[in-house]
Amino acid sequence: MKIAVIGATGTVGRAVRAELEARHEVIEIGATRGTHRVNLLDADSIKRLFDAIGRVDAIVATAGRVHFGNLVEMTPAQFRVGLDDKLMGQINLVLTARDYLNDGGSFTLTSGIVGAEPIRQGASAAAVNGAIEGFVRGAAIEMPRGLRINAVSPTVLVEALDSYAPYFRGFEAASGARVALAYSRSVEGAETGRVYKVH
Amino acid sequence: MKIAVIGATGTVGRAVRAELEARHEVIEIGATRGTHRVNLLDADSIKRLFDAIGRVDAIVATAGRVHFGNLVEMTPAQFRVGLDDKLMGQINLVLTARDYLNDGGSFTLTSGIVGAEPIRQGASAAAVNGAIEGFVRGAAIEMPRGLRINAVSPTVLVEALDSYAPYFRGFEAASGARVALAYSRSVEGAETGRVYKVH
Repeated sequence: MKIAVIGATGTVGRAVRAELEARHEVIEIGATRGTHRVNLLDADSIKRLFDAIGRVDAIVATAGRVHFGNLVEMTPAQFRVGLDDKLMGQINLVLTARDYLNDGGSFTLTSGIVGAEPIRQGASAAAVNGAIEGFVRGAAIEMPRGLRINAVSPTVLVEALDSYAPYFRGFEAASGARVALAYSRSVEGAETGRVYKVH
Repeated sequence: MKIAVIGATGTVGRAVRAELEARHEVIEIGATRGTHRVNLLDADSIKRLFDAIGRVDAIVATAGRVHFGNLVEMTPAQFRVGLDDKLMGQINLVLTARDYLNDGGSFTLTSGIVGAEPIRQGASAAAVNGAIEGFVRGAAIEMPRGLRINAVSPTVLVEALDSYAPYFRGFEAASGARVALAYSRSVEGAETGRVYKVH
């Protein structure tokens, strides 16, 4: 398969590439780094990317920013960061790049454990992740040409504990390699409308 | 209790008022109709509303627009309608009106069956409802002063079948009175972070 991994230079993206590169042609795409660049907030940027790399069999998105902060101090503008970036970035990708997927191809989006399991400062992330999971369930039944769509909901990564451990005390971390298996299962399996929880 | 019902002139809102008015002082608030008006997309409008009606013990939101349409034709702008209106309207309400809730007061938001159970043309609604449910779980653990927050996820209402039946073939409809019980349970109960499914 020819697989586009967007967010390929991030912690999850690197692990997904390592898992998929053993068997597939993986195209590395980043926001600010990587062989190819894309701005998921700009449909034209998404089109230019796929015009350059051509049609693919699978698109994996591990990109997106969310604001973490105390709910009692959170402003609507801060709340919107995750909606505008992590959520709409992945939605834009699906709405725009679906025409560049070969028949039977797949999208694999990224939600996250916050949403199912709350943490302090995570109310906006919980909304974004809930939206992605709802969208995947809703979109799966309307995909044309046998296209599939799933999401992976990772727990905190072992490789990210230096930054995130204080937010996730008591949570069991998963290695990037273990999280990457869920992406492989989505890309190389046959299911659609699933949320693969790695937690 | 003194209870603000926002979206009080809609199908769900009317049923909620009927259930709660038997025991409580219910303040009827609409977007374009009703005794009081509010624009949930405008924080200043929310503040003006509560400056006028004073502090309350519970706030119920049954308001919000979402775009229904085929996924293969849906544009990012159409997708955003629900994020900007139903989702951010309810989020703005929580972020702005929490200071007008008495200690131990509650928010009850509205998600919907689409999100848990997909229907055609419902991908945007599924994302919005998933976001509301994720937000409620995330926000509940950070609410100050014993404030609570829950959501109600209604199936299609019997009273709305004239308009919505074609979207919900095979779904069991619920009467407004039955859906209103879930709102009563949220407002008059003691739980927080719950999604009460009426389906």
